[in-house]
Amino acid sequence: MSVILGPNRYGKAETRLVRVVRDGGVHHLKDINVSSSLSGEMAAVHLTGSNAAVLPTDTQKNTAYAFARKHGVDQIEDFALLLARHFVRSQPTIHHARVEIDEYGWERIGGGHSFVRGGREVRTCVVHHDRDGRTSVVSGLKDLVVLNSTDSEFHGYIVDEYTTLRPTTDRILATAVTAHWRHASPEADFGKSYAEVRQSLLDAFAGTYSLSLQQTLYAMGTRVLESRPEVCEVRMRMPNKHHFLVDLEPFGLDNDNEVFYAADRPYGLIEGSVLREDAPDAAFAWE
Amino acid sequence: MSVILGPNRYGKAETRLVRVVRDGGVHHLKDINVSSSLSGEMAAVHLTGSNAAVLPTDTQKNTAYAFARKHGVDQIEDFALLLARHFVRSQPTIHHARVEIDEYGWERIGGGHSFVRGGREVRTCVVHHDRDGRTSVVSGLKDLVVLNSTDSEFHGYIVDEYTTLRPTTDRILATAVTAHWRHASPEADFGKSYAEVRQSLLDAFAGTYSLSLQQTLYAMGTRVLESRPEVCEVRMRMPNKHHFLVDLEPFGLDNDNEVFYAADRPYGLIEGSVLREDAPDAAFAWE
Amino acid sequence: MSVILGPNRYGKAETRLVRVVRDGGVHHLKDINVSSSLSGEMAAVHLTGSNAAVLPTDTQKNTAYAFARKHGVDQIEDFALLLARHFVRSQPTIHHARVEIDEYGWERIGGGHSFVRGGREVRTCVVHHDRDGRTSVVSGLKDLVVLNSTDSEFHGYIVDEYTTLRPTTDRILATAVTAHWRHASPEADFGKSYAEVRQSLLDAFAGTYSLSLQQTLYAMGTRVLESRPEVCEVRMRMPNKHHFLVDLEPFGLDNDNEVFYAADRPYGLIEGSVLREDAPDAAFAWE
Amino acid sequence: MSVILGPNRYGKAETRLVRVVRDGGVHHLKDINVSSSLSGEMAAVHLTGSNAAVLPTDTQKNTAYAFARKHGVDQIEDFALLLARHFVRSQPTIHHARVEIDEYGWERIGGGHSFVRGGREVRTCVVHHDRDGRTSVVSGLKDLVVLNSTDSEFHGYIVDEYTTLRPTTDRILATAVTAHWRHASPEADFGKSYAEVRQSLLDAFAGTYSLSLQQTLYAMGTRVLESRPEVCEVRMRMPNKHHFLVDLEPFGLDNDNEVFYAADRPYGLIEGSVLREDAPDAAFAWE
Repeated sequence: MSVILGPNRYGKAETRLVRVVRDGGVHHLKDINVSSSLSGEMAAVHLTGSNAAVLPTDTQKNTAYAFARKHGVDQIEDFALLLARHFVRSQPTIHHARVEIDEYGWERIGGGHSFVRGGREVRTCVVHHDRDGRTSVVSGLKDLVVLNSTDSEFHGYIVDEYTTLRPTTDRILATAVTAHWRHASPEADFGKSYAEVRQSLLDAFAGTYSLSLQQTLYAMGTRVLESRPEVCEVRMRMPNKHHFLVDLEPFGLDNDNEVFYAADRPYGLIEGSVLREDAPDAAFAWE
Repeated sequence: MSVILGPNRYGKAETRLVRVVRDGGVHHLKDINVSSSLSGEMAAVHLTGSNAAVLPTDTQKNTAYAFARKHGVDQIEDFALLLARHFVRSQPTIHHARVEIDEYGWERIGGGHSFVRGGREVRTCVVHHDRDGRTSVVSGLKDLVVLNSTDSEFHGYIVDEYTTLRPTTDRILATAVTAHWRHASPEADFGKSYAEVRQSLLDAFAGTYSLSLQQTLYAMGTRVLESRPEVCEVRMRMPNKHHFLVDLEPFGLDNDNEVFYAADRPYGLIEGSVLREDAPDAAFAWE
Repeated sequence: MSVILGPNRYGKAETRLVRVVRDGGVHHLKDINVSSSLSGEMAAVHLTGSNAAVLPTDTQKNTAYAFARKHGVDQIEDFALLLARHFVRSQPTIHHARVEIDEYGWERIGGGHSFVRGGREVRTCVVHHDRDGRTSVVSGLKDLVVLNSTDSEFHGYIVDEYTTLRPTTDRILATAVTAHWRHASPEADFGKSYAEVRQSLLDAFAGTYSLSLQQTLYAMGTRVLESRPEVCEVRMRMPNKHHFLVDLEPFGLDNDNEVFYAADRPYGLIEGSVLREDAPDAAFAWE
Repeated sequence: MSVILGPNRYGKAETRLVRVVRDGGVHHLKDINVSSSLSGEMAAVHLTGSNAAVLPTDTQKNTAYAFARKHGVDQIEDFALLLARHFVRSQPTIHHARVEIDEYGWERIGGGHSFVRGGREVRTCVVHHDRDGRTSVVSGLKDLVVLNSTDSEFHGYIVDEYTTLRPTTDRILATAVTAHWRHASPEADFGKSYAEVRQSLLDAFAGTYSLSLQQTLYAMGTRVLESRPEVCEVRMRMPNKHHFLVDLEPFGLDNDNEVFYAADRPYGLIEGSVLREDAPDAAFAWE
């Protein structure tokens, strides 16, 4: 039997890094979680255990800390690019680097050096760079939990022998948005872009009269593409966090969309993407 | 051998309840998690399985939903009191009720019916009521993650044969505050009280030049008691979320409190309480 | 206003420690999670930030590692006692030590040095020791998930205006057992005791025809006390993990206790305890 | 600007289903978590909110429950195939179905109807079926935590300016295996296959003298392919759960691979795959 080594990569995951910049009495805080994955000439390490081509994951972690000191950490996309390019350029055996960074938000609470960890969503990015100079940047967010308490309907669906759901013209629509958007170029003002994409997602969620969660998802993605020329594709994953109207009739009470049971499982799960017709090829961007 | 039934209680935990109030086009949202526990004449159900004295946990859940419709949900403490009193008053076999409610915050995003789930801390309360008419109310919060990037020292501690820690005059101090505060009376403006206690906790955390996390905890509790006459006791649990300065010397770099490793485990854990000298007896408030 | 410092303690939580003993080619593995909490002359550290009475949490961690090397780790109760006594005896400012240890089980997979992490339950203990020489030992387990697919009924309960539950004479009874049992003395064969208490809990769960989860809980605790003379009190916490029979009538199918929906929340929660009539005073054992 | 709808799918996730089969007094238990995702003629629902082509996620859930009653649940792969084929065959608008099932293991504890939830690993499968009759089956497991306390080295790696790691000829090697293996055909004895693949993974982990975690991963995958002709490809994800030797020198103690600190984050992450040279095309199997 002939066995082949297939796709593989290795790296250091979840290096928790906090960077403080002191601007006189005013401090600035970056709180990130860095994961790097490298691939390249890795046949030997799999087949014989020779590590001659391996840059240890411990070294990848050290590099993240050292780069944070040398270059600072401003936008996570830029920091990820710096790391990815370094790994590929400095090691001939490394042909491809993937760097993923999550960022946790903090807000000031008085004085210049006190902070409270902020809203629930986490900002994310995934960057790829290979030795042919190809580079991709995907920005994103996760755990952005949103809810519309009206302006959502659901009806007109297929009815088969296993259907028990009743159509509704007024329901709660709630989801936890995970969204990733691909940049057409690795050069962008990522801070401004993030803030405006996030706002577009919220605006479209709030402003869409929804006949299905798919429609809302599509509207959100489209709004991003319409407002942000630097973005060429948006992928989203949105669970339908069901809020079931509680039947209060047994207690002689009506329930005109007032009292709901927020269910955990099962949940609907809507996954979809929108892209520009002329979007450049994604290559490895979504890996 | 003689075996005795010791302390016991039973109830329905984590009933997730969302209440929408429509004020024209402007909706108001309450998102809570209700847990009730009852005790009383429960010898038979333990010894023989007779449920004659048992109000089923399913009924406790139904009551929470029905009460949300009939009475609305404004402050969680008031809603918990309503439920606790109902269970004790309506069932002679139930001598004591404990109701715990968590509340998740939401913020508006445009329009009148669109919301984003807000900051990370969860508002909490625990209410007790018994058939002798005794009542206690403890309000609280959890998961309020705060950080000071300076104005924290740690030195002058005991040194023994297992000591390796070096003293520091400048470190990051970070914690996730869990705080519970006991009200002297079950009557209070709980909404206003909550907002101001939360602010006192944040102010004292930010404003305390800290020589130990215990000192910070004590300052936070004292600030609450000084500013809120309705509160007679504060209990806190504050993990010391260690941020270790990364040693960058091997890379020829200094690190003047700039780059930190945010560790998961182990963590310090500081638990403490402050109370007024003339605080009324706590009875079962903290159970 | 006079503010008093109330109950307080501090320590290092969740020190993850793995101890390997090599017996020729056969290795033995202990995988534990140690949390220590100390209290004593702690007024100054709270009021002024003076750490003169404080044994740092970092040192507590170091002590756990050093003691694992010097004394080995056999039964977690014995290791916890060793640490608790050390902290109190070695430091005059420390009047009381609480040490909690969780142990994760591993099973061998061939050879002498290969292991797979085993069943889901976690073995636990909490030990207290104070400078008056008082000592308590509570052993326990958590996350022991068990299920009876029949021999469980529920009926004869109180019916009120909020009742919708229908009585049943055949249901699934499932729970995740958390149990803690107090030893009458700090000297015991803790390994043998643990194995037999665990078996008693399982036997009583499996062997009890249940009319209520309280009855099952009581039977489990009683079985432990009857079979283990070294144990004087058992406290249990058992969520009723509801398995709801799915209504298949709309699809023309019956469902004679065959297909169930396993719900997450809400859940029933039964908490109770049994103790010997002549059990010694618990003092601080349950804190 | 022209925006295109890209890849999309929707479904019901995490339908928790427990199936009991009564064989006289001996009961058999299946405890599964079903997630289905459908795709097909979904342009309208995204662009206009028309649900005419949508089989609601609620109906997908109902179908899982009804099929469990009608057809039973034996091997999860077979049950997933049944559901996937049903969705595609019964609805012309559904062109592709993906069904993922997790299974939780239970072991008997005496009698015929009492069970304890077993080992930690979860059995998994992902099945695809499309209207062209193409079908794929990937089986798997996750959370299989294994550890070798010796026979693991790590040295000979690249050293650069960010290297601080020291080579070792004896370390703990621990990981939580996630493995997925693709079947060459949708017809197999999935129960037997699972048991033997699992054993091959354990055997190869235990039996490999490791110079790198990549080598161990490759040996595990290769062992599966060598022993199981029905499997044509294996993909694995194995975090390197670091166990760091604690430095006890400050306490005058040596530490000859006896006492370790089990770290949480960061961790190494090794991802890799092996496949037969003549493996059929994977098509959508890994989506």
